[in-house]
Amino acid sequence: MKNSYFLSIENLNRDETLPLSEVLAQLAFNERGLIPVITQDVESKQVLMFAWMNRQALDQTLTTGRMTYWSRSRDELWVKGESSGHTQTLVSMAIDCDGDVLLCQVEQTGAACHTGRVDCFYLNVDRERQQVRVDKDPS
Amino acid sequence: MKNSYFLSIENLNRDETLPLSEVLAQLAFNERGLIPVITQDVESKQVLMFAWMNRQALDQTLTTGRMTYWSRSRDELWVKGESSGHTQTLVSMAIDCDGDVLLCQVEQTGAACHTGRVDCFYLNVDRERQQVRVDKDPS
Repeated sequence: MKNSYFLSIENLNRDETLPLSEVLAQLAFNERGLIPVITQDVESKQVLMFAWMNRQALDQTLTTGRMTYWSRSRDELWVKGESSGHTQTLVSMAIDCDGDVLLCQVEQTGAACHTGRVDCFYLNVDRERQQVRVDKDPS
Repeated sequence: MKNSYFLSIENLNRDETLPLSEVLAQLAFNERGLIPVITQDVESKQVLMFAWMNRQALDQTLTTGRMTYWSRSRDELWVKGESSGHTQTLVSMAIDCDGDVLLCQVEQTGAACHTGRVDCFYLNVDRERQQVRVDKDPS
């Protein structure tokens, strides 16, 4: 979706800066007040998981450095790893060109997926055989 | 969100397979009939962009091997690179544990971002300085 604020800054050159509070105020949270978050392992570059944040979860993540999402199923703040111990330490965060997605690089402790797998993307599409193949054992 | 089909298959072991048509029929498209798609460069592992597919875009991507999204702003199928030439060839696709996100590895021709940058995530959050810093020049 086009967002006039992010359109207005898309031609900035490398190393130009903007106040964080100004940019965050312009983020395109959806009709439920949520923004998609892609979480990537800073070392392996594996995409670990995909989840959502509301503004409070985002502020808490930035303040504490611990990845904090909004759980849509429990309808509450979700400090990743709070019960499992599989925490994620925020290393860096980037906002996309439209201001409607966040990409976070993290240091992952243990498994990112609730099934005990390193990441959530273990169901692989095999177009040739028209199958889906599991590519990691559960814990 | 919990999806009973994906819950029922989460303990499958590595290399077990399921029919593709069965799995695709269970994907959790949202209330607009869309599913989030994370697109990653198969070589650099950079996350290039984030977009959405409806069932038709997904089927067309799997059939043609060319990444095809649903454009929410234009409300139409969007063959990536159709006008810019910056196409994406699908190398592999994975579904997440909840069946509500797709992760695609692609070979990217040219820039993934409409600004001419390699990827869309060029606005970096600097927590210490409370700034957002542009980390790539526009084309």
